[in-house]
Amino acid sequence: MPRPVTEEDVWRRITQAFPCTGKNALGLPLDDDAALLTPRAGQQTILTCDWFLEGTHFLRDRHPADAVGWKCLARATSDIVAMGGSPRCFLLGLALPGSHSGPWLRGFFEGLQRAAAAFACNLAGGDTTRRDEILISVTVVGEVPSGKAIRRSGAKAGDQVFVSGTLGEAELGLRMLEKHRGFAQPKNAALKKQLYPEPPMALGQWLLRNKLASAMMDLSDGLSSDLPRLARASGVGAKIVAAQLPITRLADRADGISLALHGGEDYELLFSVRPAVAKRLPETYCGRALTRIGEITAGKEIVVEMAGTVKPLAPGGWDPFRK
Amino acid sequence: MPRPVTEEDVWRRITQAFPCTGKNALGLPLDDDAALLTPRAGQQTILTCDWFLEGTHFLRDRHPADAVGWKCLARATSDIVAMGGSPRCFLLGLALPGSHSGPWLRGFFEGLQRAAAAFACNLAGGDTTRRDEILISVTVVGEVPSGKAIRRSGAKAGDQVFVSGTLGEAELGLRMLEKHRGFAQPKNAALKKQLYPEPPMALGQWLLRNKLASAMMDLSDGLSSDLPRLARASGVGAKIVAAQLPITRLADRADGISLALHGGEDYELLFSVRPAVAKRLPETYCGRALTRIGEITAGKEIVVEMAGTVKPLAPGGWDPFRK
Repeated sequence: MPRPVTEEDVWRRITQAFPCTGKNALGLPLDDDAALLTPRAGQQTILTCDWFLEGTHFLRDRHPADAVGWKCLARATSDIVAMGGSPRCFLLGLALPGSHSGPWLRGFFEGLQRAAAAFACNLAGGDTTRRDEILISVTVVGEVPSGKAIRRSGAKAGDQVFVSGTLGEAELGLRMLEKHRGFAQPKNAALKKQLYPEPPMALGQWLLRNKLASAMMDLSDGLSSDLPRLARASGVGAKIVAAQLPITRLADRADGISLALHGGEDYELLFSVRPAVAKRLPETYCGRALTRIGEITAGKEIVVEMAGTVKPLAPGGWDPFRK
Repeated sequence: MPRPVTEEDVWRRITQAFPCTGKNALGLPLDDDAALLTPRAGQQTILTCDWFLEGTHFLRDRHPADAVGWKCLARATSDIVAMGGSPRCFLLGLALPGSHSGPWLRGFFEGLQRAAAAFACNLAGGDTTRRDEILISVTVVGEVPSGKAIRRSGAKAGDQVFVSGTLGEAELGLRMLEKHRGFAQPKNAALKKQLYPEPPMALGQWLLRNKLASAMMDLSDGLSSDLPRLARASGVGAKIVAAQLPITRLADRADGISLALHGGEDYELLFSVRPAVAKRLPETYCGRALTRIGEITAGKEIVVEMAGTVKPLAPGGWDPFRK
């Protein structure tokens, strides 16, 4: 009988999976009590944490292990990107069944390592435990030049509202993934976005450097849930135009608009831009479309203009407590 | 029918429960994408995260809600204390059933607030979701004067080995709690330690300021599991003397020694001290005993002297993967 897996075994596999072999990116052995980070001069530290739970946020039998590894870090990093910041390191809370400490764990690390490299965000520490279900909690630590973080609260009436990329793809990918048995493959843009989302890190940093965004957040729960949050934080309203939404070509038009309004998990950026500087925005940045979808208004209402009529936009995005 | 609880409702209750009313300790509204922390000059940032999961780390029907709130923060803070650091803020990952968003959540926040005040560690952000089981992930961010953190790796042969407080109490408290039905009360020192552990923060900081500890860690999994970790990190061995262990008076002597060797969750400090400065240690610090329990040796072995014989000390502490 093989020796039962211990917590230290799992942690050893983690330290082996990361190239700094037993030391974290910060030079401290991963087996010390905590990680030490030396802040860079002139920078503020950004802190964010995100759940990624089997059944709630991913499906054990549909999301391949490497997609779970990629996505858990990518989505947590998205909050750093949404402030125009740079990720620096992450902490991994990982609970998993003993049966998943072999090939599944290797696949998970492979995806996690690819994400860590893509976002220049290294493993700094964490906590592991055994559990019947796969539970993941990721904390990302980033940095941003002091006082320069792009917040949700800076939008003013008259600002133009922009989004990056195509909206609704991740939700469409989820539908495709749920329809078929077995592990999903990134066969099209929708499944690729569902499995391996890529928060537009370079775009967020470029908007910050060029002082172009008056307010910004990431689209994690869907435009109809997230836009009201940005508007509320700024004390404004917004009007968006359905015909201007960057919808997916993989669905028909009506469905594409509904997906773009309410679909979650795109991890694209939603931001407002003062009218005077809006012309400085290119049509694409690093290959991703930047689309004007409406404008900030003086009231408190969030409305959408669709087929010639203007109506309130009710949140239809994802809320785990509403499920 | 009452309106179903949403994720924003839960988050609103969190922001109401914390005295900064909607702003975190760092001045950023809790509903922005991420928290911003301005590092203090001359300080390094310490990062640690810890699971606190129903069934694995606490029992829903035995640990009162306020004990869950207190303990989830106290145990994560213990890793900051173990480096001689000062906690600064924490991120809370909280998943809970809709049925627990009323009185249970209020009790939880009450304990969490008490701990936040006791450890001067304020809520900076987090993530909430609905789940059948109560899942908690806490990330604590602390700070320590640059280059001064007390690590596990500094012990040398000849150093004396010390522990703070009484060992084995939390494990004894767990036994008492498991034996009775219903929520446990802190009726004695063992139950108090199990429900409301208090990592000796002032002691850790005092040892750092006075450069008294050559290596240090917290006792979370039990002496027989944790001492080998400190020894391995330092490349040394250790010999401890059973008769010197600060055992609980609530168990008989043999049981007390076994609890002190293998019992987890005490969150006391284990540290080594160079012989030349050992006499500068008082017998108690802030009301907590400091007890010399043995010494660091040149070999790699961890041994215990008990009833006149010396034998290897096998890890018997808590490992979730071994359960």
